[in-house]
Amino acid sequence: MHSIYFDFLCPYAWRGLELATALGGPQGFVPRHFSLLEGNHRDNTQELHWRLTDQDPRAQGEDSFLKAQHASLNAFLSAQAARRQGPATEWNYSLVLFRLHHEQGQPLEEATFQQAAQLAEELDQAAWQQARQEISGLQAALRADLDTAAGIGVQGTPTFVLESGEAAYFRFEELTRDPAEAKRRWDLYTAVLRDPARIGTIKRARNRPA
Amino acid sequence: MHSIYFDFLCPYAWRGLELATALGGPQGFVPRHFSLLEGNHRDNTQELHWRLTDQDPRAQGEDSFLKAQHASLNAFLSAQAARRQGPATEWNYSLVLFRLHHEQGQPLEEATFQQAAQLAEELDQAAWQQARQEISGLQAALRADLDTAAGIGVQGTPTFVLESGEAAYFRFEELTRDPAEAKRRWDLYTAVLRDPARIGTIKRARNRPA
Repeated sequence: MHSIYFDFLCPYAWRGLELATALGGPQGFVPRHFSLLEGNHRDNTQELHWRLTDQDPRAQGEDSFLKAQHASLNAFLSAQAARRQGPATEWNYSLVLFRLHHEQGQPLEEATFQQAAQLAEELDQAAWQQARQEISGLQAALRADLDTAAGIGVQGTPTFVLESGEAAYFRFEELTRDPAEAKRRWDLYTAVLRDPARIGTIKRARNRPA
Repeated sequence: MHSIYFDFLCPYAWRGLELATALGGPQGFVPRHFSLLEGNHRDNTQELHWRLTDQDPRAQGEDSFLKAQHASLNAFLSAQAARRQGPATEWNYSLVLFRLHHEQGQPLEEATFQQAAQLAEELDQAAWQQARQEISGLQAALRADLDTAAGIGVQGTPTFVLESGEAAYFRFEELTRDPAEAKRRWDLYTAVLRDPARIGTIKRARNRPA
């Protein structure tokens, strides 16, 4: 199985999960969490000092970092609760939540998590509600994902980790849900990763902020 | 014509220039300078405040930044002097200098620049020596390259700018001088840039420093 690392905050991660869905979803990919806030935190340049899972899920505030922390942490924990029902149910929940947020513009907050649980196929809502109460267990499961991501060296989302071991951030602008197009795109991405030139980076130049 | 932006400090830029050479060199590519020291300078996050071309080419020192500055600036200026003899001669000089430094391990300093001038095909040494005296003109020509690079948003070397306008950093580990392999590699790189998915980045994950 390949893995896909994502953060619900990230629109590129959403397109990545759509790509993986068009390629077979949980039949081919294990969903995994990587925190952009943790990965990019200024205190974490050398070692991980600031951990998302050390933060209080109830912590809110007006500043943009605290808002993003509240949204990201609670979205992760809500998906970890869905993971208790197996990878296919987690996949359905995560995809619905991504679409509600990035396609329909709903905020990553409790009402949206509840709506995602209602919409996600195969999800047992009572069991999900129950699982959400076990905060420390969900935090520990999330922490395990983030530790694994750090060990691999994930730096952005989506990052795909191939069954064969290669791992790379794959950022693209155009959403696709078409299996043939998704296959073509995946073949190009994996061709870069497996190329004998040992390609480390292809990164488009961008003008500096004005 | 495509362009290739490089810094003599960078081993990936060397492999990039070898790739471009195997693809036809100055028949297909215009050589251009981008300064990694300037591009990554902490004072230049928003606007360019620290300019390589404002530094004294004679400035030397023991600290690693000043050493790199002296090496990079003088290598650029020596290549700008070769540029006065046309793009083919500049190409020959730049390729020889890259090989002396990155393949043979010679430092980017005066003795190496002189050796590169002796080895570079078609280079008129007396004219090159003469051109090297016109420091302010060489600095201005270098500055024009660096300004153009900043406008494009070059962030690393080698960055190729395609005739069709796409521009991207292309980092790979394996040197090739084989035209067929270079063609295959170039086709893969340009396929990524021209893909309808509008791929922004493919970047391999790397473990954090221990």
